Amino acid sequence: MTAKIPVVENILSANDALAGQIQAQLDQAAVLALNVMASPGGGKTSVILRTVRALMDEVRIGVMDGDIVEIDLRELAALGLPVSLINTGGQCHLDANMVLRALPSMNLGALDLLIIENVGNLICPAAFKLGVHFNIVIASVPEGADKPYKYPSMFRGADVLLLNKMDLQEYMDFDVDYFRQGVEALNPGVAFFPVSCRTGEGLDAWFAWLRAQLNSRSAAG
Amino acid sequence: MTAKIPVVENILSANDALAGQIQAQLDQAAVLALNVMASPGGGKTSVILRTVRALMDEVRIGVMDGDIVEIDLRELAALGLPVSLINTGGQCHLDANMVLRALPSMNLGALDLLIIENVGNLICPAAFKLGVHFNIVIASVPEGADKPYKYPSMFRGADVLLLNKMDLQEYMDFDVDYFRQGVEALNPGVAFFPVSCRTGEGLDAWFAWLRAQLNSRSAAG
Repeated sequence: MTAKIPVVENILSANDALAGQIQAQLDQAAVLALNVMASPGGGKTSVILRTVRALMDEVRIGVMDGDIVEIDLRELAALGLPVSLINTGGQCHLDANMVLRALPSMNLGALDLLIIENVGNLICPAAFKLGVHFNIVIASVPEGADKPYKYPSMFRGADVLLLNKMDLQEYMDFDVDYFRQGVEALNPGVAFFPVSCRTGEGLDAWFAWLRAQLNSRSAAG
Repeated sequence: MTAKIPVVENILSANDALAGQIQAQLDQAAVLALNVMASPGGGKTSVILRTVRALMDEVRIGVMDGDIVEIDLRELAALGLPVSLINTGGQCHLDANMVLRALPSMNLGALDLLIIENVGNLICPAAFKLGVHFNIVIASVPEGADKPYKYPSMFRGADVLLLNKMDLQEYMDFDVDYFRQGVEALNPGVAFFPVSCRTGEGLDAWFAWLRAQLNSRSAAG
């Protein structure tokens, strides 16, 4: 009856070992990497597009996308960025093995920043480390303020939390205090940025945070 | 290298066998059952609350909720409904085993309609039959019109598709034609209801559809 738990642990520890290999490759190439996670339609692609447009004249950026179709990559590819589709075949999350196998498709020596767009899902991706430096979780106003209470692993594991679609707040009942309380209980002091990819509101603070990380790494390297 | 596929198939065929047991119990008790699926924050609880309020004077309704917290059930319990939390412990979907074990908590003989609220996830729940009569999938306008293209299993398996939060359409770029094309390619002729749980728009057509199913079953029984 207890046989299931060790199996899950084996999968996750095997994943963690592969994640360590990814992080070693990234660090050797001095590439900062982000794992971007959200619900379906929470705004992963919009945040990535906004971020790329803001920073692409300063740093060299590549994007990997865990998906079954290349829709989200078209606009990025049109910007001249190196992009790579990790075809998940309908899987519910990216794991370190998928990312490790896809890494050779990116020329890490020609990048400063690698953005990995995970599968749209608030549960499964939280369990699989990808060897990145920061987990970026995007929540969005229309999903409702109760999400931290219902998807605690995702919110607990966030290094940065963006609350997207703030432009819709005036049309709906979103209790920001209730949302913040839920987040703080799980992840006190997490970097938090309320933003709107539609209007651009709040994004400068997120860009400044990311610039600071990139600068501190290049100063150390 | 091919060992993984048979294991997945065993899990799913074991699940299907248990789903058959659920359906037999439901049919013996003449209970119509729905499996309600959506993204996190797509509107499962709002649709269920609206539906219960509209039909609770006509039929006897019970609700099961796959979740880790009972937040969504409080309002339903306050209406005097039999409700049951299937504590998923953070699992990414309900399976037939969980529902079968929870069935004794519901007095099926005292119900006409059982609504099962699945975990907020557009991927994993699509793979696990629960022995219900209809899969109800809720998409929502702020998630974007590309969701059928990115989560095909979920949209392919829907018996009814509700497009919720139509009241937000005027504030965003949601291409209804693109959405409908994606749905039609996967699931031609699926029952489709654009609704808003906030304003009530469109819900009468969904209630009428559900009433018709309940009536045809009680006429046949």
